[in-house]
This record gives sequence, C-alpha cells and structure tokens, in this order.
Amino acid sequence: MAAASSPSSLHSSLRSCSKISITSHLSFSGSSPGFVKIPSRSGICSVGRICAAPLRSQANPVKVSASAAPVMDKPDSRVSTVVDVDLGNRSYPIYIGPGLLDEPDLLQRHVHGKRVLVVTNTTIAPLYLDKVTSALTHGNENISVESVILPDGEQYKNMETLMKVFDKAIETRLDRKCTFVALGGGVIGDMCGFAAAAFLRGVNFIQIPTTLMAMVDSSVGGKTGINHPLGKNMIGAFYQPQCVLVDTDTLNTLRERELASGIAEVVKYGLIRDAAFFEWLENNMHTLLARDPIALSYAIKRSCENKAEVVSLDEKESGLRATLNLGHTFGHAIETQAGYGQWLHGEAVAAGTVMAVDMSFRLGWIDETIKKRTLDILQLAKLPIAPPDVMTVDKFKKTMAVDKKVADGLLRLILLKGPLGNCVFTGDYDRNVLDETLRAFCKS
Amino acid sequence: MAAASSPSSLHSSLRSCSKISITSHLSFSGSSPGFVKIPSRSGICSVGRICAAPLRSQANPVKVSASAAPVMDKPDSRVSTVVDVDLGNRSYPIYIGPGLLDEPDLLQRHVHGKRVLVVTNTTIAPLYLDKVTSALTHGNENISVESVILPDGEQYKNMETLMKVFDKAIETRLDRKCTFVALGGGVIGDMCGFAAAAFLRGVNFIQIPTTLMAMVDSSVGGKTGINHPLGKNMIGAFYQPQCVLVDTDTLNTLRERELASGIAEVVKYGLIRDAAFFEWLENNMHTLLARDPIALSYAIKRSCENKAEVVSLDEKESGLRATLNLGHTFGHAIETQAGYGQWLHGEAVAAGTVMAVDMSFRLGWIDETIKKRTLDILQLAKLPIAPPDVMTVDKFKKTMAVDKKVADGLLRLILLKGPLGNCVFTGDYDRNVLDETLRAFCKS
Ligand SMILES: NC(=O)c1ccc[n+]([C@@H]2O[C@H](COP(=O)([O-])OP(=O)(O)OC[C@H]3O[C@@H](n4cnc5c(N)ncnc54)[C@H](O)[C@@H]3O)[C@@H](O)[C@H]2O)c1
Ligand SMILES: NC(=O)c1ccc[n+]([C@@H]2O[C@H](COP(=O)([O-])OP(=O)(O)OC[C@H]3O[C@@H](n4cnc5c(N)ncnc54)[C@H](O)[C@@H]3O)[C@@H](O)[C@H]2O)c1
Ligand SMILES: [Zn+2]
Ligand SMILES: [Zn+2]
Repeated sequence: MAAASSPSSLHSSLRSCSKISITSHLSFSGSSPGFVKIPSRSGICSVGRICAAPLRSQANPVKVSASAAPVMDKPDSRVSTVVDVDLGNRSYPIYIGPGLLDEPDLLQRHVHGKRVLVVTNTTIAPLYLDKVTSALTHGNENISVESVILPDGEQYKNMETLMKVFDKAIETRLDRKCTFVALGGGVIGDMCGFAAAAFLRGVNFIQIPTTLMAMVDSSVGGKTGINHPLGKNMIGAFYQPQCVLVDTDTLNTLRERELASGIAEVVKYGLIRDAAFFEWLENNMHTLLARDPIALSYAIKRSCENKAEVVSLDEKESGLRATLNLGHTFGHAIETQAGYGQWLHGEAVAAGTVMAVDMSFRLGWIDETIKKRTLDILQLAKLPIAPPDVMTVDKFKKTMAVDKKVADGLLRLILLKGPLGNCVFTGDYDRNVLDETLRAFCKS
Repeated sequence: MAAASSPSSLHSSLRSCSKISITSHLSFSGSSPGFVKIPSRSGICSVGRICAAPLRSQANPVKVSASAAPVMDKPDSRVSTVVDVDLGNRSYPIYIGPGLLDEPDLLQRHVHGKRVLVVTNTTIAPLYLDKVTSALTHGNENISVESVILPDGEQYKNMETLMKVFDKAIETRLDRKCTFVALGGGVIGDMCGFAAAAFLRGVNFIQIPTTLMAMVDSSVGGKTGINHPLGKNMIGAFYQPQCVLVDTDTLNTLRERELASGIAEVVKYGLIRDAAFFEWLENNMHTLLARDPIALSYAIKRSCENKAEVVSLDEKESGLRATLNLGHTFGHAIETQAGYGQWLHGEAVAAGTVMAVDMSFRLGWIDETIKKRTLDILQLAKLPIAPPDVMTVDKFKKTMAVDKKVADGLLRLILLKGPLGNCVFTGDYDRNVLDETLRAFCKS
C-alpha cells in the first residue's frame, strides 16, 4: 500500500536567485516523549520500514536532501517529519506529524522570552487552546500564556480585528521578547503573523496551523496580512515564523468541506510539478480522506517541500511562482461571483483547475489521460469539478479581466503542457480556445 | 566664520556587528539644473572653497569617508551634500541642501514605477504639495501623482488615519510598483513609512522630511509606525526608504518652536559623541537659527552621520543605541506629565538633557564647563533648561519607573562622563544623586 517516491527530473525553468532551500528528514518518535530526529537514509527504501528515498537532487542552494515515503501498513506508528525551510538567519523548521502538541519540548524550544500570546478564534479555542497552553507551559513554570480569541471568519480578517490583538498585547504589557502563537487556519495565521510583524516593529512568531489549507499553503512563504474592504490581503508583511508545528491530529475536528478544500491545493502541487506525488495521491486519496495521520503527514510534507522550492526559485512572483496559482484565475472568478463564503477557496480552485486542464487539452498541450486523471482525483476528494450554475461566460470574462494576472491587457494563464507535472504561465494561446472552455462550462 | 571639522577619535565603546555604514560627499550644484556629485577631496580644506576634510576614520564596515565643512562666507552658493546610508541592498542616499525640490532629477531617479502617492497633511499640502508634484512630474509625463492629505497632529498618528492612506492607494488602484512619498514632519514620515511597508506587503518609499526633527532623526534608522491608544509607536515596521530628500528651504516656514525642538536633538549628538560638532554648534547657533541653508545643511548632515554610526554599531538597541536617548528619560516624564502636546518633544528633551548633565556633574563625572556650555547652547537656541512648574519629584519618579529604560528594576540613565563628547548608559550611580538632581529642578 505504501508508495515510495520516485526520482523525478526538474521540469520548470529554474532561476538561480534562490533564497529558500529545504531539507527534510524523517523521524520516528514512537513512545519517546521528545522529538527524535533520525537522519534520513537516502536511497535505502523498503516497504514496511521508515525510509527516505531521494526525491530529486539539484544544485545548491535549493537542497531537497530526501523525501519520506510513509509506511502505510503500520498506521498506528507515530511518524513525524521535519521540513527545514532554509532562509539563512531566518530559517525555520516545519514539524509535521500526529500528536506533536503532546510534545512540549518542540514548541518550547522556539519560544523566546517568557511571555506568549496565543491568537485563535471562537471555534478553535474550545478545541485546542488548553492543549496548546499546556504544551507551552508543561514543565516550564517560567512561561506565562495570554490569549486573544477572535471572531471566526474571513470577514473578520480586517484591521478592526487586528487591533484586538494589539489591544491584548499592550494591555498585558508584552515586550519585545514575547512570542505570538497563531493557533488556527489561514485567517488566524495571516492575522497573527502580521500582528507579530508589526507589534513593537516585530516579535517572535510561531504557527500552529489547524486546517489542511494553512498547513500546505500558508506555512511556507512568509506572507501575512489582512483584507481591506476593497481587496483581499492588501495590507501585510513578509514575516517568517520561528517554527511551524503541524499536529495532524487537529485535522480530526475539521469539517469535511474544509479538508477537501485543502486537498485541492495539494493536488495542484502534483499537477504543476510533481508527477510522482500526483500518482501517490491517486493511490492514497481514500487514506487521506480517512485522515490517516501518516498519509496526511506525507501529503503535507511533500506540499511544503514543493511550495518551498517554487518560492525559493522565484521570490518576486515574476513567473515560476505564479504557477502556484493553477486554477486560481478561473477560481477567483467563481469566488467573486458566487459571493465570497459561498464557495470555499479550495472548492473554487478545484473547479478552476478542471477548467485550466480542459483548456490545456483543447490546445493540444496535454493528452486526454491527464484531463481524466485530474477529474477523477478531484471527484475522489469530493471536490466540485465545474463552476456553479450562476456562472456565465460574461461573468468569467468580466472578473478574469481585472484579475491581477493580467499584464499589459494580456490574460496570462497557468496551463498544463507536456507530460504530467509540467505547466506553463503564458498569454500565448489561442483566444478562441479560452472561449470554448468557458462555453463548455457555462450554461449561457 | 567657517569652522572646518577637526579629526576626532572614536570614543564610545564600539561593537563589530555593524550593518549601516555611511559615506558622505559634498556637491556643488551652482546654477546647473542637475545634482552634480563632486568627489570629496579628503584632507584638502580651505575656507572659502568647497572642501571636504576627514572627520574620522575607522575600520570597515562603518565608513565615514569624509565630512563637509560648509562655506559660511558665501551664503548664497548652493551647497548640497549627500550622506550615503550603506545597508547592503537596502542602501540609500540622504540628499541635503537648499533648493533640492527644484531639481526634479533627484527625486525622479528614485521613483520606481509610474505611479506615486504623496502622503502629507493639511498644514504642509498648501505649502509644498504643488512643488513636490512638479518635481515628480517635471519633464516626465509618464508619472502620475496621487495625494492623500491627512489631519495634522500627533493625535492622528493612529490606525484610523493610516487606513486613509490605504483607502487612497486602493481606490486609485496602485500596484506593487508604485512609490509612496512622505512629505512632512516625523508624524507623516512614520505613518507613510509604515503604510509603504504594509501596502501589498511593501512598496517603494521616499522621504521628504520638512521639520528639522524629521531631518536629523527619523531620516536614519528605518523606524516607522503609529501610536496605540495605550502607547506611542507600538505598531510599526523597520522599513528603509529609496532615498531621503532634505530641502532645507522647507524649514523657512517652520514655526520657531519646532525648529528649536529639532535643535535639541542636534545638540544631543554633539554631547554624546561629537565634541567637534558641539563646538561648531556653539559657534554657529545664530546662523542656524537664522536658517542659513549652509549651516542647516551641515548640521543635518553631521547629525545623520552620527545617528547612522550609532545605529549601525548597535542595531538591536542593546546599549550604545540607547545613548541616542540622552535627556529622554527625564524628558519623557515631562512630556507625559505636562500633557502630550503642551511641550514639544525636543523641548522636553532639552530640559531633560540639562537634568542629565546636572546629575553627571553632581556625580563628579564631568567638569563644570560642560554643564555650563550645555546650558548656554540650549538657551541660545531658546530651548527650556528646566522642567515646568507642574513637575514634582514624585511625578518624575513615578513616570521614570515605568520608562522602558528600566531593566530589572534598575533605572539606567544616559549620563555624560569624561571629556565633552563622552557618555555612558548605566544603572551604576549613587541613587541619592538622582534625588538631588530631581529636588534641584522641582519646587516640591
Ligand atoms: N499566507 C499564505 O500564504 C496563505 C496561503 C493560503 C491561504 N491564506 C489565507 O488563509 C485563509 C484561508 O484559510 P483556511 O482555509 O484555513 O480558512 P479559515 O482559517 O477560515 O479556517 C476555516 C474554518 O475552519 C475552522 N477551523 C480551523 N481549524 C479547525 C480545526 N482543527 N477543527 C475545526 N475547525 C477548524 C475555522 O475556525 C474556520 O471556520 C484566507 O484568508 C487566505 O487568504 C494565506
Ligand atoms: N522614525 C523615527 O526614527 C523618529 C524619530 C524622531 C521622531 N519620530 C516621530 O516624529 C514625530 C515628531 O515629528 P515632528 O517633530 O516632525 O512633528 P510633526 O510631524 O507633528 O511636525 C510638527 C508640526 O510642524 C508642521 N510642519 C511640518 N513641516 C513644516 C514646514 N516645513 N513648515 C511649516 N510647518 C511644518 C507639522 O504639520 C506639525 O504641525 C513623533 O511622532 C515621533 O514619534 C520618529
Ligand atoms: Zn490557493
Ligand atoms: Zn528624541
């Protein structure tokens, strides 16, 4: 049942101005209380054992030393992995695995100073705030934990809510040496990260993402911020955490739709640059949806590695980085027109991905099997594979024309091209084919 | 009348973790329209000519290549200088001189993209907004300038006012390539800088300080931010500008009290680390107060160099950097207790400086001439040399105990020690002497 990762050559056009490099190792913590790093053993890979096989190798400074294939036939073994995001003196580890919130040492080694402010929301606080507080203070009476519980929802990702974080920090007289901890999904992560960046011009920051979306997307890249009434994520900062702690057990309470929404982004990494991962996802989707901790850990790890590589190769979002937006241009139109909040981001991305893949096929850039496999895997994840009925060709065109990916009036799109795992970001395609795709997916 | 700068050895305890290095050159733009850099000629210095004499030299990376002695007997010659703040890929020049807003090329070479947002206030807009707009667009029709005019006053340095900057930027659809220009004093500079840091996670930023305070203090160090109802400058970012343009002519409209307020900070640089500069100030205070552009340029330049050196040697505000707060602990108590806005910041600093110097003298750390010279120079600048009558010993103690410079219950103060131009940041002094100073300056 386990799928070992296979070597895969680099396909995207790589640039040399890398800043982020990643290294991964697989750890087995079994019943030991601490988080024990076991050096990865490149090349030695056997089913039924902890193993690490080389995923791909390339010139420095982007180093992917090893990728782990989880052991599926031992579902209760506690496997944890670390992805090291290498940013020079701002490097940080992403710890991934089940039960990590029960290992206080992991968090505590990244807490600077004695005072912590946990930022969370009304949904997550009753579920995990006590646990996180314990993890922060267990065996360490010097640490005092404050918390601020924000209202839940994207509509609260704004300046007014952000001020509540500052209010709390200042009322409780936190100083420069404190640490902010984001406990929640992407909304909490983005807000808490920006608050940490701006409070006293920057304090320490730890991320504990609790949605799959936040685990596979916001944990890499350092983007933080809030919305403005006139636009999403308009105000923010690039700010790196001290560490990211992904306890896959927290996903057990996540609503199914939210889990699937995150999977849309996971599938995206496979489609744009990682065929072996896509195949693994095809084989393990049921296990993932059953929230198997080992499968989840692996999918999250591989996603973080893929995102870290792309971001490191193109920090400035000039080209390669745009490929992370596969399906997002169509998806953005759906999110906007269906009314924000009606469709989850990942749901819109899924439908958008199907449209991008359809268009790639119509252009003759991919063969039909890729289109079919994309449809199948998204359906397996119970994600939508078409836009809602309200969408018309005109609505798509109207929204897509103001989408930020339009440079010089030319609508550039991320489209698949070549064998599975290859894509392009281009405005050089037949306009009629875009129209064909839009007509195929809209009633009018 | 001109005072050539004399070599001065480094006195403060220097650390090696330098990030900012500064180099200066003197330029003569005469009647030529552009800003012509003339290489500095170290060592060759004659009165009545443009000259550059070595101020001090020290090991890399803090390089002060040359300092300019302005030519006082040719008051109408247009002398401009540049201080280069060397921060690796975030290095920027500070242009200093009269009439610089009439040299469009200076600004335009630092504008990235085609769209500019000028942030200013209701007092400054009628005086300089047209001029700045002309400077930005003259001979360059591609550049479009938007502006946002904020209410005037420290009480508006808050989140609500900051949002007006974002509102304007978003309503006018500015993108990542735009440039924010701060036109005003420290309040505008701090707010616009933070807005530039946060808008779309960071856009280009140019500072045009129009108060002496902003020219000699906020133009170096990269601190930006806003106040929170519970504390000053609590929310912000470290963010460096593309350039700082100091047109000394803008000081002609500044109220006398505001000019003097800036001079308190200028005098501070002399006291804590630059005896030669202090002497120059003693000799040229009348010329400065008469707003002689050459004297102003020199004083601003020397202040920026001193601040850049201190900041570069101690980015983390651990010790040396604290010396920039000479007089600020006593001053802060005055500002707080006299009611913010009653006393200008520099006025409070002046009275606070007198108190710190008095205490240094009582401790036997400096001789009486330094105390006398400090009093004289501040009086010359028409700055207060004692706290207001409302201040009592208790009020001082109460406020100073919560001042941020208290570490571990010990009130550390910046005090002068040794020959002119030397200071210490210490909690190691006789407590009774502090009481003596407080009693000497308070009626009860
Ligand atoms: N910074 C980045 O790079 C980045 C990347 C992707 C998305 N984002 C941002 O993230 C946001 C979307 O994130 P999201 O999808 O996580 O949405 P979210 O944060 O709103 O979380 C979705 C819902 O799940 C709830 N929830 C979270 N964890 C839970 C758990 N363990 N159990 C039960 N319920 C739980 C939340 O309270 C919320 O109601 C957007 O604002 C987006 O802009 C940022
Ligand atoms: N970032 C830093 O490193 C730094 C350093 C020092 C001070 N500051 C901040 O700067 C602020 C104080 O700055 P400030 O002293 O410049 O006060 P300010 O910005 O309030 O300006 C003082 C007054 O002068 C007016 N003014 C400005 N330029 C003028 C001109 N050319 N002609 C006529 N009027 C003019 C202003 O409108 C205002 O009324 C404080 O908020 C302080 O925190 C920041
Ligand atoms: Zn997305
Ligand atoms: Zn000051």
